Amino acid sequence: MKFSPLFWPIRFEKGVIYVLDETALPDKLTYMKVKDYKQACKAIKEMKTRAVGQVLLVMCTFLLEISKINKTGNMLPVLEKVSSAINAARPTLPFKMLTDMVLGWAKQSLPLERNILGFLEMLKNKRIQQAKEAALLLKDKDVILTHCNISGLMPLIGEFCRKQSKELSFFVTETRPYLQGSRLSAWELKHSGFEVTIISDNMAAQVMSEGRINKIIVGADHLAGNGDIANKIGTFQLAILARYFKIPFFVLCPPKSSVKTGKEIKIEIRPDKELLEFCGRRIAPKGVKGYYPAFDITPAGFITKHIYLDIKR
Amino acid sequence: MKFSPLFWPIRFEKGVIYVLDETALPDKLTYMKVKDYKQACKAIKEMKTRAVGQVLLVMCTFLLEISKINKTGNMLPVLEKVSSAINAARPTLPFKMLTDMVLGWAKQSLPLERNILGFLEMLKNKRIQQAKEAALLLKDKDVILTHCNISGLMPLIGEFCRKQSKELSFFVTETRPYLQGSRLSAWELKHSGFEVTIISDNMAAQVMSEGRINKIIVGADHLAGNGDIANKIGTFQLAILARYFKIPFFVLCPPKSSVKTGKEIKIEIRPDKELLEFCGRRIAPKGVKGYYPAFDITPAGFITKHIYLDIKR
Repeated sequence: MKFSPLFWPIRFEKGVIYVLDETALPDKLTYMKVKDYKQACKAIKEMKTRAVGQVLLVMCTFLLEISKINKTGNMLPVLEKVSSAINAARPTLPFKMLTDMVLGWAKQSLPLERNILGFLEMLKNKRIQQAKEAALLLKDKDVILTHCNISGLMPLIGEFCRKQSKELSFFVTETRPYLQGSRLSAWELKHSGFEVTIISDNMAAQVMSEGRINKIIVGADHLAGNGDIANKIGTFQLAILARYFKIPFFVLCPPKSSVKTGKEIKIEIRPDKELLEFCGRRIAPKGVKGYYPAFDITPAGFITKHIYLDIKR
Repeated sequence: MKFSPLFWPIRFEKGVIYVLDETALPDKLTYMKVKDYKQACKAIKEMKTRAVGQVLLVMCTFLLEISKINKTGNMLPVLEKVSSAINAARPTLPFKMLTDMVLGWAKQSLPLERNILGFLEMLKNKRIQQAKEAALLLKDKDVILTHCNISGLMPLIGEFCRKQSKELSFFVTETRPYLQGSRLSAWELKHSGFEVTIISDNMAAQVMSEGRINKIIVGADHLAGNGDIANKIGTFQLAILARYFKIPFFVLCPPKSSVKTGKEIKIEIRPDKELLEFCGRRIAPKGVKGYYPAFDITPAGFITKHIYLDIKR
């Protein structure tokens, strides 16, 4: 099975975390070095990594900071400092769920490295399982519309379909303003040999009305107890369109967080500069402001099927 | 009453047509010279002018070509040649309606210049009337979402509202890939002193769900007999969202064409390069294709109110 570099974009080796710089794609496949938790938080804030990359980076950051501590010392103050910096990095992904898990292990004096590595191994296997499960929902010649980027899961789903003699093709929304759809999803799908067509975010209804799309598959950054999800801005309107055009809408979910409904999920508002500038060049008129909510909430009722990531903690 | 340069972006003076180059906005307010019908068709194809600018350019092109003909000669062959070039320039706007009107005048030996100038004068007055009528539908503190650019009508509607002591503010979708929303609408609204906020096309549902939008107003490039419209790609999905969120959806229409329903309107497919490149720089991965339908059809049933442009021919 071939994996996209986006499937596992972080690795920890000899005291250094290597982070796939997703802002440099598709021009360059390059890894940046992260040497402490402050750099890790900066990489998260600047969206050098996102989605599952953030989860991996959090866990590797703990591995990194733990490796610096004298094994006989009290690790808790350091872990708490790291945790609170991570929790404050971006609001929508439930970082606290991860950091609380690690703090919990520490408080129970469980072997931290082994638990973290075990968690990462389980996460990898469960993600592969998730892609396999999604593939079972699809048919030969299905044309999938996807939005943003689901960290290597879309090409993996396509690979599993191939094993079952089903060939998929893809439409990808470019996903403004960060262009995760064209820069990341189209790139990884093309590299895995799939037919992929980019559309801008405002063309979704048109391609659906032309009957070009059989299924919609998106990811999620946050799953509430009732099945509501937070995902990249634009997901909710795709779900509304999917309902109108009667197209199945599948979500590859992260583990459930502790919040009950989507209303409790905080939506990150990012600097409008990221919307109004492109490659350092201003594309909007001077003096005009922008509004950039980075996520939206899709109520559970719009989701044809949740494909869960069943992580035991 | 102050007018946006986009309200009347074409003028004909001493044998030359001056075309506001909308591709240079908002960086530069500059007019390009057009000296024959071939240059006029090129300007239309390259979207140097669009929407009502195309109508004005067609009529001015006839004035230009007529001015070159010996008045005693037979004008019809020239007019027919010009007409067929214009009709082939872009498919979605009903150019034939305009060129047939001029050919009709010629066949009836009516004074062409006077008829064309009369038509343009009527068009200008009717457009002002249309803005006035739209303003009556709005309330003080209404927040309007608009898409693409309606050639100077949005700031004019805002000005009429001000006369009625109603202050509007605006959200504008950036309108990928050509960015008419941020480059043109946000620019002209800001210049007229209105508060305007840019969002990307995938944020529409989110700003609606936050209760930020009271009314949606868009234009149309083509109005079918049954009230279906063709407008800039993205309009249809805004209409679907407006219905879901119960937000009134108003359309500033052009005159009705001869087609019965939206199904008969041909949607222009533009080169995917315009979607995959930005300022000459490729933003999509190599080898990946795009799909760029430039318009979509919004069925009449989604439109809360058509604001007609009542032109006698």
